[in-house]
Amino acid sequence: MDDEFEKIAWLKARFELGDPPDGSVLGIGDDAAVFDFGAQPTVVTVDTHVEGIHFRRDWLSPSELGARAMIAAVSDVYAMAAQAVGSVVALTLPPKYPEADFRSLIDGLADAARATGAAVIGGNLSGGPVLSITTTAFGHSAERALTRRGARVGDRIYATGALGASALGFRLLEAGRLDLEHAKSFIDRWRRPPIRAEVAGRLSDFATAAIDVSDACLQDLGHICRASEVGATLDAQALPTLLGFAETCAAIGADPLELALTGGEDYEILFTAADVTKADAVATQIGVITADPILRVLDANGRSIPLRSDGFRHFS
Amino acid sequence: MDDEFEKIAWLKARFELGDPPDGSVLGIGDDAAVFDFGAQPTVVTVDTHVEGIHFRRDWLSPSELGARAMIAAVSDVYAMAAQAVGSVVALTLPPKYPEADFRSLIDGLADAARATGAAVIGGNLSGGPVLSITTTAFGHSAERALTRRGARVGDRIYATGALGASALGFRLLEAGRLDLEHAKSFIDRWRRPPIRAEVAGRLSDFATAAIDVSDACLQDLGHICRASEVGATLDAQALPTLLGFAETCAAIGADPLELALTGGEDYEILFTAADVTKADAVATQIGVITADPILRVLDANGRSIPLRSDGFRHFS
Repeated sequence: MDDEFEKIAWLKARFELGDPPDGSVLGIGDDAAVFDFGAQPTVVTVDTHVEGIHFRRDWLSPSELGARAMIAAVSDVYAMAAQAVGSVVALTLPPKYPEADFRSLIDGLADAARATGAAVIGGNLSGGPVLSITTTAFGHSAERALTRRGARVGDRIYATGALGASALGFRLLEAGRLDLEHAKSFIDRWRRPPIRAEVAGRLSDFATAAIDVSDACLQDLGHICRASEVGATLDAQALPTLLGFAETCAAIGADPLELALTGGEDYEILFTAADVTKADAVATQIGVITADPILRVLDANGRSIPLRSDGFRHFS
Repeated sequence: MDDEFEKIAWLKARFELGDPPDGSVLGIGDDAAVFDFGAQPTVVTVDTHVEGIHFRRDWLSPSELGARAMIAAVSDVYAMAAQAVGSVVALTLPPKYPEADFRSLIDGLADAARATGAAVIGGNLSGGPVLSITTTAFGHSAERALTRRGARVGDRIYATGALGASALGFRLLEAGRLDLEHAKSFIDRWRRPPIRAEVAGRLSDFATAAIDVSDACLQDLGHICRASEVGATLDAQALPTLLGFAETCAAIGADPLELALTGGEDYEILFTAADVTKADAVATQIGVITADPILRVLDANGRSIPLRSDGFRHFS
């Protein structure tokens, strides 16, 4: 299957297994796909995974990589309180990329496309020095799309799932510390980001602003604060983490609070809400929106932890 | 402007110069853009330009590169008889990519987005080993989207503009033969592909099938033939070329017929039509669709030129 056209024919079969996705007028195989987005506005986002920057090939399987690329892109759709309806994938393959890996990569993409709803409606294959996957994902909100702009003073701040887990998994892979007791659960979180479709589907009920945790909790919260012209105070003790987080951080000399606040790629949803009853049912309350336009993190005694200008604390 | 967020703020301003594009509900700067595609089906296509594969940085200016990436993507929209309505751009920047080059690249993208109608509604910035641009383009057809499937026996085959010009320009750049009399016009065709919006807007009036010449005339015609279950006979003498094509090919030892038929990246539109009056007004007739499902190329004496299995003639 060295020939690009054979690859495309195979891709077409792989991605259209089962019924063509809703809205698909013309699928893979022509100059372009034709897709009926319907009468409502469409959420559109694009994300790139580049070998050597976002991943190393020996750190996850090709199918995990395919799934990760898809889920990372769709995560931005979820953060707009939308559900994924389709995607377009551009693959850049390095020289002599093994065919078995190519097939697994596509399997991972296709499986994640099915799991997220972002059916692959078109794509592009090209060569390049390293493996790279650019996914454009489309979504539709039940009501209005949720932006970063609606946070109001007094709103509670929430995070789904766990923070810092993916970043810790990444550090463990870098350090080669797969031997640690809880290593697998963090590495798995890096390899297989969560699919927050269910929370996304409920967000417009109660959230006032949302973003996905791709850069890092503190940085992404900063985006909400700047867009909403507010500030935020976080409770360090409230940050949700996976079992064994502090011990595993300690074992590799990482600061757990720093990782939870500044570790990226959790692909969790960070949102603000006034209705705590509904929000408490889907996520963990980690702080409150304030009028003073700065970010604060409070320790167990309610004292402000000094932060550097880039959002993390001064090391003493 | 080393900071990604500064870059994004600047990009936002650059791409939204003037009014936001029609259909833009929420522009660059949130997790995702929100775009109203309207009630009609949308043409969706994606294309990648990778340094070292599709271009070398010293072969064209950053602004030409930006424009080329945009036009190459939009070319697939045109080939569906559609007009561009929007685009999403994912940029991968190599380490220490000069800021002035970045700005010029974006200028080229933004100018071509304006010229084609494919207003940039969203994007992504990431690092990588080489410069890479992935453009997802969206379009709408006046009527139905034109596919590769509608060619009928007896339809005439047409090409817009000139064939092989871009491939010759590429060869001249490779060979460093910028001294040749006509070199500039071919190199310019490689650097600045044509924008075939006007022909695209008229295609649905008279074309039965269409494709853009990205792989090569013969290969792309093969795609139409396979999809339409027909064959084709081309007249070698009729292939449209730019002034000085044969002499310039001769000067670098290239075969003009081979370049015209198998040179890629012309981004012209290859189409079939039964109504020759309307088609003759916009493009050059180069052959006819046949029932026999093979590709033939006839010489000046009406004799078939022997082709290799990959679509080009055996060298004697």
